[in-house]
Amino acid sequence: MKIGRIRVDTPEGKRVRLVAVDPKNNRVIDLAKAKALLLQSQGATDAASWRMANTMLPPSLTEAIGTGKQFLDVANDAVVARADDASITMDGIDWAPSADPSIVRDCISFRAHLEAYFEKMGHNLHPLHYKMPAYYKGSTANLIGHNGTVMWPSYTDFVDYELELGFILGAQAHNVTPDEAKDMLFGMTILNDFSSRDYQDPEMLLMLGPTQSKDFCYAVGPWVTTMDEIEDMSSMEMKAWVNDELWSSGKADTMRWTTDDLIAYISRGDTLKHGDLLGSGTVGGGSALELDRRPKPGDTVRMEVTGLGSLTVVMGQKEEMRWGPTLEEVTADL
Amino acid sequence: MKIGRIRVDTPEGKRVRLVAVDPKNNRVIDLAKAKALLLQSQGATDAASWRMANTMLPPSLTEAIGTGKQFLDVANDAVVARADDASITMDGIDWAPSADPSIVRDCISFRAHLEAYFEKMGHNLHPLHYKMPAYYKGSTANLIGHNGTVMWPSYTDFVDYELELGFILGAQAHNVTPDEAKDMLFGMTILNDFSSRDYQDPEMLLMLGPTQSKDFCYAVGPWVTTMDEIEDMSSMEMKAWVNDELWSSGKADTMRWTTDDLIAYISRGDTLKHGDLLGSGTVGGGSALELDRRPKPGDTVRMEVTGLGSLTVVMGQKEEMRWGPTLEEVTADL
Repeated sequence: MKIGRIRVDTPEGKRVRLVAVDPKNNRVIDLAKAKALLLQSQGATDAASWRMANTMLPPSLTEAIGTGKQFLDVANDAVVARADDASITMDGIDWAPSADPSIVRDCISFRAHLEAYFEKMGHNLHPLHYKMPAYYKGSTANLIGHNGTVMWPSYTDFVDYELELGFILGAQAHNVTPDEAKDMLFGMTILNDFSSRDYQDPEMLLMLGPTQSKDFCYAVGPWVTTMDEIEDMSSMEMKAWVNDELWSSGKADTMRWTTDDLIAYISRGDTLKHGDLLGSGTVGGGSALELDRRPKPGDTVRMEVTGLGSLTVVMGQKEEMRWGPTLEEVTADL
Repeated sequence: MKIGRIRVDTPEGKRVRLVAVDPKNNRVIDLAKAKALLLQSQGATDAASWRMANTMLPPSLTEAIGTGKQFLDVANDAVVARADDASITMDGIDWAPSADPSIVRDCISFRAHLEAYFEKMGHNLHPLHYKMPAYYKGSTANLIGHNGTVMWPSYTDFVDYELELGFILGAQAHNVTPDEAKDMLFGMTILNDFSSRDYQDPEMLLMLGPTQSKDFCYAVGPWVTTMDEIEDMSSMEMKAWVNDELWSSGKADTMRWTTDDLIAYISRGDTLKHGDLLGSGTVGGGSALELDRRPKPGDTVRMEVTGLGSLTVVMGQKEEMRWGPTLEEVTADL
């Protein structure tokens, strides 16, 4: 199943709905509505059917996954029974982020990007990177979905895209082995992990990890494809276009750690939960930095990954500098 | 007001309740119960009173703060009207974490700790630390409260405590100035930001910030003191005991950035939200590393901060190593 999140108009304002995506028929199916109609056909009152449907198929993907393995059965039964009566055309849909995790954990699974990044930034790549599946953590306060606008912060002239796979957890994991981590993924989505390259450089020297250089925007979408629809992750092609010009292309089969490894490693000193988002790290060549190019405000960045759809976002205009050190100030003495 | 979160037994198992803490009378007041009783006295049905009370005073402090400025008025009115009928003795209370943020953002506001930390770890302290209010981000999956047990991960022999102030946001903030950030704090709590010192060292060389060396445990508690009860933050004394021996003591007035500065800085490239937790960073001398000492499994760590109460936790036993590089493996070539 392909599960998306869309915003719809209601008398209370915009509200998010969980939908099954049916690209072949150019439609999405409102899951709670399909379930409510199914329950009504089985004798439920209008009020009870919606109360149950909204509880079983809530707007939050994290909460829906938290209902356990029955989630996909309930969603699938509702779609099979009442798709036609709960459909919305895909034209003009207002897409919300495909997932709503509380935190991003982003790994560095692609060796080609790892080595290219450190070379381009002029930093020493420590050999420990070959022993430890390093990751950093991101705030999800500025998550956007398909057709969203990327915040361009005040302190940067170089906002880069990063072409990644996003993995959504379907279970809780603490101190598990890779073998136990098998089957813990719920699904996959495209992740565009934006970076401020010029501010990232001084920030890394503080040795506390990326903050201002990352958390202004993560894009996830257009939807989440559940693992049963992923035939062979390793054969996925990953591509990124800027204004319809192909800038990046790579293959998922160059990951040096498996997702089982990543889950096992992170779970040693943390606890992964239903709905959490893991990033693969950028595929080799999957950023403008590696190409000596730069997207600019107003540019459109489109990503496509085999089986996961196509995620488009627009680079916003630079925000006003209101307080704090400027790029010039922090890079003056480097 | 002092607001805590406690776990109580229900026919459904343990459930969290938001409480007003009344240390003088050795009791806590179940806020939803006090509100429900008040509503009943004003003519509400039993069912309606609980429905409203649980919505207005939910178990999640983040959700409660999200109800806006009325939260404290509603809580206060309920306590004034019905405290005696909704009281629970403090003896034997099962304390939940005092806050439930989705992410920790932990700063380095105390210069003495900053300089001592880099010296003890043998890393170069980059002068950029004097220009930028650096912070790192932590996962809150392993948050504990008063009387909780600290997870001791498999890969470390040195789990250290860190004595910090925790600030809880009362508003949303993006790209604000320090002046606009005034009055955005909801309250303060004690934060014990545990660190694995031996694993932190190799992890920092990856240049992605602390992960396994931090996210195994953050302790917050015993409760949150709202800002109206904080007379003078700068005069707060901060102390930490291990097994009743005083190890650390410091003063909050040595912070080199104000909380207004921190909020303004973080908000440039992120968005702060109701209920978010900011850490001050460790006060000078507020960790065992700085004293060349080490807590061990089974030790009790107690922290006390003027006006914020006393937060006690117990160091757990080391977990089983199940997968991934050992400490010896990652430190072999350093």
